Amino acid sequence: MPQAEATAPRRRASWEIRRQAIIDTSATVFARRGYHATGIAELCVANELGKGALYHYIGSKEGLLAAIHDRVMDEVMAGADRVADAGGSPSEQLTRLGEELLDVIHRYPHHVWVFLHEFPALTGERADQFRTRRRAYERRVETVIQAGVDAGELRPVDPKLTAKAWLGMHNYTYLWLKPGGSLSARDVAQPFADIFMHGITATP
Amino acid sequence: MPQAEATAPRRRASWEIRRQAIIDTSATVFARRGYHATGIAELCVANELGKGALYHYIGSKEGLLAAIHDRVMDEVMAGADRVADAGGSPSEQLTRLGEELLDVIHRYPHHVWVFLHEFPALTGERADQFRTRRRAYERRVETVIQAGVDAGELRPVDPKLTAKAWLGMHNYTYLWLKPGGSLSARDVAQPFADIFMHGITATP
Repeated sequence: MPQAEATAPRRRASWEIRRQAIIDTSATVFARRGYHATGIAELCVANELGKGALYHYIGSKEGLLAAIHDRVMDEVMAGADRVADAGGSPSEQLTRLGEELLDVIHRYPHHVWVFLHEFPALTGERADQFRTRRRAYERRVETVIQAGVDAGELRPVDPKLTAKAWLGMHNYTYLWLKPGGSLSARDVAQPFADIFMHGITATP
Repeated sequence: MPQAEATAPRRRASWEIRRQAIIDTSATVFARRGYHATGIAELCVANELGKGALYHYIGSKEGLLAAIHDRVMDEVMAGADRVADAGGSPSEQLTRLGEELLDVIHRYPHHVWVFLHEFPALTGERADQFRTRRRAYERRVETVIQAGVDAGELRPVDPKLTAKAWLGMHNYTYLWLKPGGSLSARDVAQPFADIFMHGITATP
């Protein structure tokens, strides 16, 4: 490949890597200080960049917030895709969806904190896109539950309400499931799946 | 009772009523705009009070935030007390704890929003007190689960992790369980208790 043609993609890739690092660092700052309370100056210090350079990578403070939300949704949807690709029974898929979701919450504590606390700060198209993506994931969970009901593998539960119960149980772990903590994502996913599939009542 | 002695308690009661109304109105403002983004001027407008009068009732903006948290915890603990007083089996108590908790979330959507989103803004003693009260409620749930395990009514689950699963499932309803919505607190509490006690797997 001639030198000139190779340079542009390389530059693009390095821009992307730097941009991702800025998103990750800024997620930590927002999680600690809050989105509204954090100024551009603080973001510049945290990222060791001038204001112009920061804007070159992120466009705007709200653009940065949207990118943090996208980072979480990209990971969550990639996990859901892996589960769908692997196939298996609806019960197995629901269990694996839980493992994948808790894995994201465990690996990205700051991003997830921002995702769950600061989404009301997204406006216009960004807010619409966030709602659409969040809803798309919820629908994946509902679809797996509905498939289980249709197959007679699950009781005839309401898929929407049941998906909400499932999401609450898993999402809420963001308050205490942390990297370096005593529990791994799998340590939690397994008993959670067990509760959700079989309940906690003792069988005589 | 002589006139002079009656006046002071009456004045105190009317001060308390006005203070509660300020807490409720301000919870709505914080829920909509965010705690950090809301200024004292905005709170004055919403409460139709001058700055001096507002401080007379609330002490400080953080004092107001703490009062909103206390309002939620007061209601949640009162519900837990009713459940304990009524007695019954651990399974029954856990089901009724769910009804009581969802009732608070359903009746106080703005307070609960602030409670779940803005607690990191509490500092010092207020943050300690909030954590202590939140932990005390969590312990109530753990205790009921442990009692069920001890009685052989529940499977030998980990009470702490199971309480966290239960809390997540119920607390997370704050995102969609709203007054005037299509579902009442009880409409949700019943299927949630059913999932938690019996799971969603079909029994052959």
